[in-house]
Amino acid sequence: MSDTTDLHAPARALDVEGWTCPAPLRDRPRVVMGHGGGGVLSAELVQQIFAPAFGGEVLAQLGDSAVLTLGGARLAFSTDSYVVRPLFFPGGSIGDLAVNGTVNDLAMSGARAAYLSCGFILEEGVELDVVRRVSEALGAAARTAGVEVATGDTKVVEAGHGDGIYLNTAGIGLVPAGVDLRPQRVVPGDVVIVSGAIGVHGVAVMSVREGLEFGVEIKSDCAALGGLVDAMLAVTPDLHVLRDPTRGGLAAALNEIAAASGAGVVIRERDVPVPSAVANACAILGLDPMYIANEGKLVAFVPREHADAVLEAMRAHPLGANSVVIGEAVEAHPGMVVARTGLGGTRVVDLPIGEQLPRIC
Amino acid sequence: MSDTTDLHAPARALDVEGWTCPAPLRDRPRVVMGHGGGGVLSAELVQQIFAPAFGGEVLAQLGDSAVLTLGGARLAFSTDSYVVRPLFFPGGSIGDLAVNGTVNDLAMSGARAAYLSCGFILEEGVELDVVRRVSEALGAAARTAGVEVATGDTKVVEAGHGDGIYLNTAGIGLVPAGVDLRPQRVVPGDVVIVSGAIGVHGVAVMSVREGLEFGVEIKSDCAALGGLVDAMLAVTPDLHVLRDPTRGGLAAALNEIAAASGAGVVIRERDVPVPSAVANACAILGLDPMYIANEGKLVAFVPREHADAVLEAMRAHPLGANSVVIGEAVEAHPGMVVARTGLGGTRVVDLPIGEQLPRIC
Repeated sequence: MSDTTDLHAPARALDVEGWTCPAPLRDRPRVVMGHGGGGVLSAELVQQIFAPAFGGEVLAQLGDSAVLTLGGARLAFSTDSYVVRPLFFPGGSIGDLAVNGTVNDLAMSGARAAYLSCGFILEEGVELDVVRRVSEALGAAARTAGVEVATGDTKVVEAGHGDGIYLNTAGIGLVPAGVDLRPQRVVPGDVVIVSGAIGVHGVAVMSVREGLEFGVEIKSDCAALGGLVDAMLAVTPDLHVLRDPTRGGLAAALNEIAAASGAGVVIRERDVPVPSAVANACAILGLDPMYIANEGKLVAFVPREHADAVLEAMRAHPLGANSVVIGEAVEAHPGMVVARTGLGGTRVVDLPIGEQLPRIC
Repeated sequence: MSDTTDLHAPARALDVEGWTCPAPLRDRPRVVMGHGGGGVLSAELVQQIFAPAFGGEVLAQLGDSAVLTLGGARLAFSTDSYVVRPLFFPGGSIGDLAVNGTVNDLAMSGARAAYLSCGFILEEGVELDVVRRVSEALGAAARTAGVEVATGDTKVVEAGHGDGIYLNTAGIGLVPAGVDLRPQRVVPGDVVIVSGAIGVHGVAVMSVREGLEFGVEIKSDCAALGGLVDAMLAVTPDLHVLRDPTRGGLAAALNEIAAASGAGVVIRERDVPVPSAVANACAILGLDPMYIANEGKLVAFVPREHADAVLEAMRAHPLGANSVVIGEAVEAHPGMVVARTGLGGTRVVDLPIGEQLPRIC
């Protein structure tokens, strides 16, 4: 388990110039848990190692999924590995995550997932019944999402070199004509909408892992968002960008969009929907809900003229019933995310360095 | 490390009827190393757990890659995870394997790989320089194979829950019009060709892992076969089936084809190209080269009328220079692979139960 104290982004004032990452890759010759956290360390790994090694123009887009053309078809293509611990948690399992996570990455490009690949890395000694239950959850989630598992692979590693089951899925889907979802399309004035309560998945996993009781059971929001995105695109194909705020939470998603778009982002802290159970758990544990992973939520940057209609369509969908506007893109502080606090002040919402909660997806 | 003695396929006589697997899944409530070996146990896992759980028609084809249609394009889609130990071996690394293994799976459908996804599962504490070297090998192999890494993901697990680096790649490529490579297309009379010496990759990995010296260094044959397959398809699109004999070796590949086609397969043992260094290593270790994994070879079932021309085209390609005919498909003993021995006898070449050499890919 990583030490979370050194992985938190430090608070910093708006007027501090020349701030640099306090944990540059060059000073860390070995992989730490935070390299998998979707924050600054993850970004360094991509920018300093993977992107130079792999090259390629599609990878350089660095979206949740790659959009490419093959045989005349415009495809979204994405992959995620899943190492969640424990394998089963309130509201889902690694099998559900492996479908919904990749389906959602494709949906963030506007694509409806069509086919998944599935790679198992099994640890010697894991019960076959556990493999069966995970597989059945994966199959059921695929049917719910309307995606077909087309190809797979299984490897086994010796006991003590895995953790029961690791999964990888890759997915492909068609991107509809006229849909072009990229952070670069964000412009000042865009309205920022989230599709519901944040912080639920991470707290749900952590509660069972750490044996914590918060008075009420918190269930993961793990769900496939393809249908919700279809409903939004039916209003207008001209959405600017979608992200599912998984690792690094809403804070990381907004920061990535701000950085890539060059726009500033302002959110109103009190409008960000945090269920009281999540807020209470975070208060006890010293965590910030803005940095906790979600697996069934999205954040959208929508042109102002379409915002009301898109919000209405989202609220009409079961997975977007609690959608709300939380802020907007602005000209000020380009590349930076700022929260207006309940007390009338402002604070910078930084990209996290590593992660508060390792292995929640 | 698994006990290899109970993972060997037992010898059996041709006239023994009603033979059943000596290690059915139901008697093994936990995953053993052999479940990842590409033999009987792997097949049981697919047939008894994955296929029922996932459903789906494409998966049911159970080829090296799935062939599917999306947006009017006919695509091959495949995935493999890579858990080879050690990460670097004579002739390659896990980075090379992760490209070539998946590129070759696509090539066995006749598709030229276009895009790869890449998922890293890093173990906390692995040196970043190792991550860099693996990534550079992966990038270089991708450029050699003419495939682009389009999307990726990184997860980190705690020290003691991984083994440095596990990799997954998934790949997509276009299947040319008129190409339909499936074991079901094999008919008696088809000529069986292998593209060169077998057993090299597995022995190369094992030699460094176990610190063995065989007098000569044996280098992995790890290579991308897309170009070789293109050269073969240029002779005729009407090849019947291609397989790259990875886990389970040539024996597993031939057995899978025999089982799926319903044809019998006869090979002439003395025509199977086994380098003397591999033969010597196998003699010392009690292994059978027929069951050892290859990563840069293919086996083809070719209509008799095209066999000479296809063989000539293969020999004209650098990766097929040592191609030879090793046997043919026959009407006799449907679904069974039989080797004619140097002494004039015959022996059944079984599907292996598990694997002789775990974690060689």
